[in-house]
Amino acid sequence: MELQTARGVRDIPPEEMILKNKVVNTLKEIFELYGFAPLETPVIERYETLAAKFGAGASSDVLKETFILTDQGKRKLGLRFELTTSLARYVAMNPNLKLPFKRYEMGPVFRDGPIKLGRVRQFWQCDVDTIGTKSMLADAEIIAVLQTVFNKLKLKVVVKVNNRKLLNGILEEAKIKNKEEAIIVIDKLNKIGNDGVTEELKEKGVTAKQIELFFSLVKENITLNELKSKVTNEEGKEGINELEELFNYLKNMGVDSVVFDISLARGLTYYTGTVFEVFAKKGKITSSLAGGGRWDDMVGNFMGGNREVPAVGVAFGLVPIMEVLKEKENVEQKTPAKIYVIPINTVKESLGVVQELRKNGISTNFSLGKKGVSKNLQYANSLGIPYTIILGEEELKKKKVVLRNMKSGQEQLLTVKQIVKKIKSE
Amino acid sequence: MELQTARGVRDIPPEEMILKNKVVNTLKEIFELYGFAPLETPVIERYETLAAKFGAGASSDVLKETFILTDQGKRKLGLRFELTTSLARYVAMNPNLKLPFKRYEMGPVFRDGPIKLGRVRQFWQCDVDTIGTKSMLADAEIIAVLQTVFNKLKLKVVVKVNNRKLLNGILEEAKIKNKEEAIIVIDKLNKIGNDGVTEELKEKGVTAKQIELFFSLVKENITLNELKSKVTNEEGKEGINELEELFNYLKNMGVDSVVFDISLARGLTYYTGTVFEVFAKKGKITSSLAGGGRWDDMVGNFMGGNREVPAVGVAFGLVPIMEVLKEKENVEQKTPAKIYVIPINTVKESLGVVQELRKNGISTNFSLGKKGVSKNLQYANSLGIPYTIILGEEELKKKKVVLRNMKSGQEQLLTVKQIVKKIKSE
Repeated sequence: MELQTARGVRDIPPEEMILKNKVVNTLKEIFELYGFAPLETPVIERYETLAAKFGAGASSDVLKETFILTDQGKRKLGLRFELTTSLARYVAMNPNLKLPFKRYEMGPVFRDGPIKLGRVRQFWQCDVDTIGTKSMLADAEIIAVLQTVFNKLKLKVVVKVNNRKLLNGILEEAKIKNKEEAIIVIDKLNKIGNDGVTEELKEKGVTAKQIELFFSLVKENITLNELKSKVTNEEGKEGINELEELFNYLKNMGVDSVVFDISLARGLTYYTGTVFEVFAKKGKITSSLAGGGRWDDMVGNFMGGNREVPAVGVAFGLVPIMEVLKEKENVEQKTPAKIYVIPINTVKESLGVVQELRKNGISTNFSLGKKGVSKNLQYANSLGIPYTIILGEEELKKKKVVLRNMKSGQEQLLTVKQIVKKIKSE
Repeated sequence: MELQTARGVRDIPPEEMILKNKVVNTLKEIFELYGFAPLETPVIERYETLAAKFGAGASSDVLKETFILTDQGKRKLGLRFELTTSLARYVAMNPNLKLPFKRYEMGPVFRDGPIKLGRVRQFWQCDVDTIGTKSMLADAEIIAVLQTVFNKLKLKVVVKVNNRKLLNGILEEAKIKNKEEAIIVIDKLNKIGNDGVTEELKEKGVTAKQIELFFSLVKENITLNELKSKVTNEEGKEGINELEELFNYLKNMGVDSVVFDISLARGLTYYTGTVFEVFAKKGKITSSLAGGGRWDDMVGNFMGGNREVPAVGVAFGLVPIMEVLKEKENVEQKTPAKIYVIPINTVKESLGVVQELRKNGISTNFSLGKKGVSKNLQYANSLGIPYTIILGEEELKKKKVVLRNMKSGQEQLLTVKQIVKKIKSE
């Protein structure tokens, strides 16, 4: 039998999982600090739910990449490709849910797409959303979560913010009719530049004059104040008002890593108002570390369109965040263990030492029947464990143990109590 | 469109997720305290891997219940039905892995089986295993993990321990030939009693005399010492020696919630030595909370049988553990928030209060544009949030806020600093 994983999926080994858990735990801690509640929706959904024309499934590309399966009852099912559709389904299925409903969910999603560098068929999404309020306070809170998360991870970031209503207003001023189509083109601005966007808009029948008018408004460093005098239609004005209210709240909350960027569009068609994306200020990673916005229509559409259920949220990109952290930190340890204990004819007493260290909250490994001190040291070294304890009969008599720093090679004769104090103070 | 989850899977709402996270975090904390490293294997595996005749897939029931899918390249894949097979595949694929390899993994597994009460098609497994050593120290360490986890969860449990080699030795003494088959019958002893087992063994051609001899050894409260004089074949003696060594180590480690139970068999065919199961001492839940044992052959078999890679591990039953905890604790809160802040014409200042509470590590929710104090109190109450803060212009002048205990209705005029101190000391 050939030993391999399924194509496009991979194992995450301990040294990487330790970093992943660090990020996931930070996200969880901050989400809960902001009062978001955990929800878990299943990996398997009815195909009908995934194919509903409201979520990312509205894009035929995403739906084409859905893993399809059938259960023994011949029901057509699929593996979820995002968490948002499942959230909308959950809210729609639970009409008595108290609103606003603030929830987070983290877990694997699946896409049966072509394999390129960095594209995998199973990856984690980490989403935070507030359902059931149109108040810009909710948008401000989500953006405050962003800033707190990246502060905690010690990453310097900038949050770019825009509003779809304002973008629609600008398209209106430029008399560009098919706004959805145009926004998908504008979303590529960063990648293909003004020339590329001009080209593609032309292909879609937009005139040179319309494009010129469009770029007179969508240009670097243009301020909300400038746009205020130039965008006079209702939708555009509403977008500007929302942005002003949002920036006001952010100021009250002490959120300062935010800038207005009129060129930010976000690709998904389901956004209806605020949109934002987070980028690292330093380093090689240029892809966004998180992104989101307001999606006021999807839940209501799931419910048959009779009720409006507004929503705003953000998705964190676990992989780019881990990449940025890897640039900064050494990822060496293949185990959480801080100490590895090696007995020399003292198994019984060493087991006591190991349990005492663990009782004091210090992650400890014990030599599991490995012979000889040097083999044991090699093993500890290869796992990146920072300290070893060697316990022979001599030390036993003195009621002490030898603590060895695996990097410096320095050895000290200490009591277990002294070791606990030393490790805890590091 | 009909709004529902796929058949046999379910959403886990916040009030339940808060409990689940408590258990998962405790498991994670203790696994890492014992130096086990995290690993994540994919949900999707090649069907060939799952169908290998070594893991739980060796039982045709399990394989029949495997969700099958194909990717766009027409490769036959399956959703994993346990984590052990994927672990064995990972170890076999990574021949340079440093042994012993101590890892834990927690995540969803899938079975497309008939739906009965308590049987679902997606459920979490939480596994800890040590790969690459035959030392009973590894078995002792795993059982110590069990005791530490349940102590931390404040659940009184008993760990029943047995050994497959000893059971095989007893079957040998009773001259029962098909040992694998017999052990699957013995595993039902607790459910169908001595009479049921007698019946089933007879059906399999075991004679009354053989069964009598078997039950003279497999009886309640029989000790290892008694068995020592009666089981004289090699395999049986080896089992007794392993158990004695194991109990010795457990004593050295201060693990005292362990008993020897000769009737414990464990159903899976892949166990080769130590087997154990954990039961709650009190309450209505009689199913085991965790179980495991030694499986020395599976990884080697995956590698083609040329190398022996011994292993020992345990799987925790998240659902029964949560059931036992639910019997003991009130599960009321639908959010992690400890405080809900209600502004009366003080949005700007209230946002400052909210952020100050969060900065001090107190999970806080803010009224997101909800009108009126009583509606806001109702909302906080329905989510089970223990405190609200009401901030009006009067309080603002005094630089204080009103803290309301939602259970007692008691209100106090306090500074934010005083509130932080109060909540943190609870």
